Order: sequence, then C-alpha cells, then structure tokens
Amino acid sequence: MLIDGLQYANWSEKIFRQLREGGVDAIHVTIAYHENFRECVLNFEQWNRWFEQHSGLIVRGLTASDIDDAKATNRTAVFFGFQNPSPIEDDIGLVEIVHRLGARFMQLTYNNQSLLATGCYESEDSGVTRMGKQVIREMNRVGLVVDMSHSADRSTIEAADISERPIAITHANPHSWHPALRNKRDDVIRAVTQNGGMLGFSIYPHHLKDSSNCTVESFCQMIADTASRFGIEHLGIGTDLCQDQPDSVVEWMRVGRWSKEIDYGEGSADNAGFPPMPEWFTDNRDFNNIKQGLLKVGMNATEADAVMGGNWYRFFAENFSPLP
Amino acid sequence: MLIDGLQYANWSEKIFRQLREGGVDAIHVTIAYHENFRECVLNFEQWNRWFEQHSGLIVRGLTASDIDDAKATNRTAVFFGFQNPSPIEDDIGLVEIVHRLGARFMQLTYNNQSLLATGCYESEDSGVTRMGKQVIREMNRVGLVVDMSHSADRSTIEAADISERPIAITHANPHSWHPALRNKRDDVIRAVTQNGGMLGFSIYPHHLKDSSNCTVESFCQMIADTASRFGIEHLGIGTDLCQDQPDSVVEWMRVGRWSKEIDYGEGSADNAGFPPMPEWFTDNRDFNNIKQGLLKVGMNATEADAVMGGNWYRFFAENFSPLP
Repeated sequence: MLIDGLQYANWSEKIFRQLREGGVDAIHVTIAYHENFRECVLNFEQWNRWFEQHSGLIVRGLTASDIDDAKATNRTAVFFGFQNPSPIEDDIGLVEIVHRLGARFMQLTYNNQSLLATGCYESEDSGVTRMGKQVIREMNRVGLVVDMSHSADRSTIEAADISERPIAITHANPHSWHPALRNKRDDVIRAVTQNGGMLGFSIYPHHLKDSSNCTVESFCQMIADTASRFGIEHLGIGTDLCQDQPDSVVEWMRVGRWSKEIDYGEGSADNAGFPPMPEWFTDNRDFNNIKQGLLKVGMNATEADAVMGGNWYRFFAENFSPLP
Repeated sequence: MLIDGLQYANWSEKIFRQLREGGVDAIHVTIAYHENFRECVLNFEQWNRWFEQHSGLIVRGLTASDIDDAKATNRTAVFFGFQNPSPIEDDIGLVEIVHRLGARFMQLTYNNQSLLATGCYESEDSGVTRMGKQVIREMNRVGLVVDMSHSADRSTIEAADISERPIAITHANPHSWHPALRNKRDDVIRAVTQNGGMLGFSIYPHHLKDSSNCTVESFCQMIADTASRFGIEHLGIGTDLCQDQPDSVVEWMRVGRWSKEIDYGEGSADNAGFPPMPEWFTDNRDFNNIKQGLLKVGMNATEADAVMGGNWYRFFAENFSPLP
C-alpha cells in the first residue's frame, strides 16, 4: 500500500500516469489555499471533471475502501483537503457540506491567524479560538480530519488535546532534524502522536536538512529516529510535491489576497520560487527510492510498508466517516 | 409504502411528528425556489441541522434503500429537490455538486423562462435551450431527475424526449379534469409517461376541480381515470402541501427577485394567499383518506398501494444513482 499524505501538483494526464507508474494507491491533494466556499466549489468541480476524463487513472476517494477499489483496478484514489479553513468561512454548517463534497482534511490555519487558531508565522500564538473549539467538535462528528501542518505550536497542542479523534500533521518534519519554522518541535509531535495522530514527512526542500541537497539516507535516518522516539505506527509520507507549478503559484500560496506586500514565506527575495526537489524524489515514480532508503537504515519490510502507506490507510479507515 | 412526491411545509418538529403519525415513509421536499447556489447551500445546511436535531423522526434520503432504513426505524426519509434550476446558475459543473449534496429532483423551470427551458407562464414556449440539452444529459449522468411540473408544454415534451432517463411531473393534475394553467394536457402526460416517467397528483387547491371544495371522490376518480388512460404504474401523489407557511412565502415563490411588481400566479388580487386545503387533506395524517378514496372508486389494494408510494419507490430506485 503506497499513500502520499499531501500533494499540490499542477495536475495533468502526465502526472496521473506517473502516479500509476509509481504504484501510488492514494494521494491527499490540496484543493484550497485561500479560496472562500464558493471559489472552492469550482475546485471540487474541476476534480469531478478530471475523474470523468481520466477515469482509467484516478478515482474519487471518500473512504479507505475506495483505496482497495483503486488498487484492484490499477488506479489512484484521490482524497481532498484544504490547507486553510477559508472554505468554511464563518459558518460551522459548511463543515458538513464540504465533507459531503469530499473534503477529508482541513488545516485549522494556513500560515496566519484564522478564525479557528494561530498560524505558524504569527508572532503571538493565542491557541484555539471559541469558534475553533466548536469547529473541531463538528469536524470530529462528520469525519473531517484536523490538519495542523501550518499551525503554531500552542494551537497544535491544544487542537490535539481538544479533538476527540486523532489529528494529523500531513506534511512537516521534526524541528530537531532541521529547525525550519514549519518543522515541528518534539512536544508538538508528542501531542499529536500520543493521541493517535499522524505525522507525514515532507520532501519540500525548505523542510529538509541541506534543502535540495538533502540525501535520501539523511531523510530516511530521520524517519527511523522519529519512529524510535514516537512510534512507527504514527508515521507516513506527505511529500508536499508541487510538481509542474509555476512560481506564480507559490506566490499565491504565500500572499493570497491577505497582503498588499510580497511575503516570501519559507523562501527569500533571492530564492522566491519553488526550490528544486532533491534528485531522489522529483515525481511520483520515485517513491521506491524512499522505501529502499528505509530498508537501508534498518527497517524491515513490514515497517517500511507501514510508513509508505499502511499507517495512512489505517488512519483513513478510522477517521473519514461520521461518528455513529 | 407511502411516499409524497412534493411538499414545501414550514418545517417543525410538529410536522415531523405528523409525518410519523401519518405513516409517511418518504417525502420529496423543495429546498429552492429562487435561490442561487450559495443561498441554496444554506438550505442544505438547515436540513443537515434538522437531521441532527430530529434524528428520531427524519433521516436523509439519497437512495431508495434509505426509505427501507427509514421504514425499519419508524422514520421518514427526506429527499431534496429544486423547483427552479437557479441553484446551478450558469454552471453545468454544479449539477454534480448539488447531486452530491443530496438534490434528487430539479425543475428545468419555475414559472418563467430559465436558462434551460420555458416556464408555464410565458406566452412563448421556445422549448429546451442549448444549455438545457447539455444539462439534461448531465442530470441523466449523475442521477438528478428532470422535473417539469412548472414548465410549458413544448418544453416538457421535448425534455421527456431528450432525456435518456425517465422524467417527472412531481405535482400537477390533468388539464382535462381541471383546466388550470399548471395542470397538464394529455399530450404532455403521454410524453412523460410513455418514456417511463411519473405524474404526482397535486392537492394544491388551485390545481383541483372546485378548488378547496374539491371532494376526495372527485380527486380519486380523476386518478382512476388517469390510470386507465396512461397506466397506473406511472402515477403517484405529490400533494404540494405547504403546511404552516405564511402568505409572505407564496409571494416569494411567485415573485422572488425577478419582478418589481406583484404577480399573483395562480391566485388573484382578492385571493392572493395560500388557499385553504380541502378538508380531507390538511396535513400528513390524512393520507389514508386518499387511499380509502382510491379503494372506493374501484382500485384494489395493490393498485392503491402503487399510487400511494410503490410507484415512486420504484422510480426513486431506478433514477437517483449515477449511470454506470
């Protein structure tokens, strides 16, 4: 079972074919960064059209069983998520609506303060808001997973504790390995994993030690170390692959409509665009490099398979359906 | 099996309890008259809330099997429909979106010309439009039933012929029985039924011979006559019950935002509000009066049951799922 916990590619038939070549059984794809509800509906529509046009390659993912169907028919199941709660606006009723349309993950914040919690780039982290507490409960009820990948530490720890179902950090790495702002400190990883949650390891170069020059050995050793500290059952991959995107897209991700000034996010004025991916992971055909790397740092096949998708499969199976 | 093919009540726990007292297994409820997509989402949200708050009385209806579940748990399955295509705006992609949110019927027109076809109050009926043809095909694909209750004759006949799946007139009566503008001429009923479609008999007084004074005998004899002419398997009930609505609502139905002038629709200046229902059908506890009336005009129990819900059940089972 091979599952990627986060991608935001510039989708095309080429990439859908690469997913098949790479044997990817399921992916979680971002369909909102700054979109309000109405705008986000257009993104659902675009995927509905792709499911129709490329029905031999991809299939809608709503429950874990859709991954089994995808695997049996040599296709990739695509699950939707938001990196920002902007699609639910200020309306808790939209939580059930977006779940019904297919959303399965929602970040409580992108980089900024949201109506629900604090983003990782704010100077003050005031934790989960009044509305945030209500929305977490509603997300728990309908089966929409709380994703804290871009949230600040206190907010993340509070969300892990408030949520009655496990939460996720779909795409980030340990801060102890590479102290990027987006990577997660030990107490954050502990709060998420001890409540049954998941951490997906990112290959976005700003999250990697030595950036684009990070070696697969270093990446896989980091995974093995994290497994020994927090439990392998809580770990998966969330590549954050943004294949074929123009640099205008990373600017949209960072600035949206919230600022009149440019914000370089994890980049800088002289490195403003998408950084090049490490040579051992440039597209969906490269997952085997990670699996081989995990075996080389001492994992057995069962352990490597758990990290490569088995753990995400279990997490999907337990967290995408409404509470009874 | 007892199914009502159309209601638009001012919903309350009282009415949900009356549905149970009346043994109503399923209803098709209108959730849009003039709402655009974004506004209609608020109506889906309202029903989601009612399903949560009144889970012992009502349950969401998406497929015919939900009626079996409702019956087994002594609840009423509620299916959604639009009396106007306004919720899909000018965007064919919204057809799949509204189906996913739970819509199962959509009228191609309310009383006026729409983007799709001509309404029954226009002086010229230009038939199904370019977009209308595309939308019918898309509705067929996803399992959203074409409802022509408020459409003009030519548009209805064309829609019945263009549609590859059966269509419905959820709430109207034969024009030959009572020549109201909203009632349907023989060639319209023939076009719909000969393609497998359904006619739901309305108890809205403006559709009844002698209006509010119509007798149950006259109503049931009209059903029996229609059965002998067009086939009993195509007939159901669609009461158009608008219980507990204030007169401001019938004004909204008629005028929406499309006119600066008052339009009395089927009413008149001196009879502008909701007309009183006939004494034999004032709420959901009165369906047995219709069934007894059907038996009295000579139907056997199997025939009466088919009209009271069996035919709608079969139609729901065959037409709410996507084409394979």
